[in-house]
Amino acid sequence: MAPKYVLHYWPSIPGRGEYIRLAFEATGTAYTESNEPKTLLKHVMSCSKVGHPPHFAPPVLEIQLEAARSTKSRKTETSEDVKSSSPFFLSQTPAILAYLAPHLGLDGVKKGKNEEDPEVDQIRRAQVNQITLTILDLNSEVHDSHHPVASSAYYEEQVPEAKKRAEDLRKVRLPKFLKLFEETIASNEDEDHLYGSSLTTADLALFQLIDGIQFAFPKRAAALEKSGKYAKVFALKQAVAKLPKIKAYLESERRLPYSDGIFRHYPELDGED
Amino acid sequence: MAPKYVLHYWPSIPGRGEYIRLAFEATGTAYTESNEPKTLLKHVMSCSKVGHPPHFAPPVLEIQLEAARSTKSRKTETSEDVKSSSPFFLSQTPAILAYLAPHLGLDGVKKGKNEEDPEVDQIRRAQVNQITLTILDLNSEVHDSHHPVASSAYYEEQVPEAKKRAEDLRKVRLPKFLKLFEETIASNEDEDHLYGSSLTTADLALFQLIDGIQFAFPKRAAALEKSGKYAKVFALKQAVAKLPKIKAYLESERRLPYSDGIFRHYPELDGED
Repeated sequence: MAPKYVLHYWPSIPGRGEYIRLAFEATGTAYTESNEPKTLLKHVMSCSKVGHPPHFAPPVLEIQLEAARSTKSRKTETSEDVKSSSPFFLSQTPAILAYLAPHLGLDGVKKGKNEEDPEVDQIRRAQVNQITLTILDLNSEVHDSHHPVASSAYYEEQVPEAKKRAEDLRKVRLPKFLKLFEETIASNEDEDHLYGSSLTTADLALFQLIDGIQFAFPKRAAALEKSGKYAKVFALKQAVAKLPKIKAYLESERRLPYSDGIFRHYPELDGED
Repeated sequence: MAPKYVLHYWPSIPGRGEYIRLAFEATGTAYTESNEPKTLLKHVMSCSKVGHPPHFAPPVLEIQLEAARSTKSRKTETSEDVKSSSPFFLSQTPAILAYLAPHLGLDGVKKGKNEEDPEVDQIRRAQVNQITLTILDLNSEVHDSHHPVASSAYYEEQVPEAKKRAEDLRKVRLPKFLKLFEETIASNEDEDHLYGSSLTTADLALFQLIDGIQFAFPKRAAALEKSGKYAKVFALKQAVAKLPKIKAYLESERRLPYSDGIFRHYPELDGED
């Protein structure tokens, strides 16, 4: 019996929770959401209530193993053991994605071919993790473009600094990251994916990152696309959007609109240069 | 036969490479270093020379499986397969640490106890990964305190912004992260570790982070220690430094001094407040 997943995240923004949602949606994996802020905050910075380890920030994934374990492991473990360990709570977007990837078949491991060499499978999973982490690094840099000085202060309190940082993001960082993603696709065995020949967390994360950048920096994103230098990146982004399960999700009410999260559209931070 | 590890990193700074070095040193794992800048740069942003996927930045870990695989898998794979796949190259500090952790016994999994439930072992590894990622997030925030606007520009070009960001780091971010680490140790079954009852990548990363902060922000670090609010964090840092293998490493020439890497001492960015 498969574990039950509950995603704890803020109710009003796609944010980092979206990277987790896309993994579930793309694979048709059952999950529920708990985004009542009070319940959510209970899980963050508060170790006493939900056990070890405490969490710095959402998303927090709740993993319920009871059902699976109570039938499978009854002989070897007492009910007390199960109670004290499950449900488990896991935070940090890349840790959640790396944990989910092999369960959801998003880990870049070809089933059947390399099974005789589990060491190679582990390296392949780690390489998918590498690409996903780099995509999430740019996600964090986008956040810092509107909060370069203090994440807990308002944007309005750091506009001059944000203009400088956003200019660096547009001119230096976006081209540098996109070049890497373009080369990653170009050097892959299959140009429909960043890694291997099947969908991974990296492809889904790239979709979300590019989609968010197109929302936050529409002029700059259009200029980058028009340059033709990153044609494989934009093609992959479009291909993911057209996957039947992703398409259905994007058209559903479960897909939240961008607002004041990581991806924010401040015209003064965008530019065609 | 164990894989051979080669760490590719800059020759002049501890930087992010130090988190990988500590994992090898703490466990007495054989590794070599390749820090000839020309060789190193070949691996970064250049997919054509070292295969897929390309890397955004060092550290890059080279993993040589040939020896192990040529004896073990000769029957099922051709020599061409082995040649095209090994050595493997892996970047992104948290991806390298998460990959190495189970190989080096730094993954928080009690050998023998939970082996009947591999699912729980995977969650434990993911939770160690969660803590390690949060420590590395603060490492990145320390970097951004002297480079809040543009990572490719000089510090001297962004001093006013750095002063603002460093003040936020000292007053808001350091206490927030240290509080979480303190609570993580307090809620653990064993206050000598962040997770579980044995050394993990999280303990080693916390040691390096605190050590770097004490170098970069000596006044602020002393005030935080003196407050007594983070006693378990500073005790754990000291305990790791005293582990025989770590102590020997720290006293060796292999331990590089801090200079102009992530942890930099600019007196104007430090303060006791």
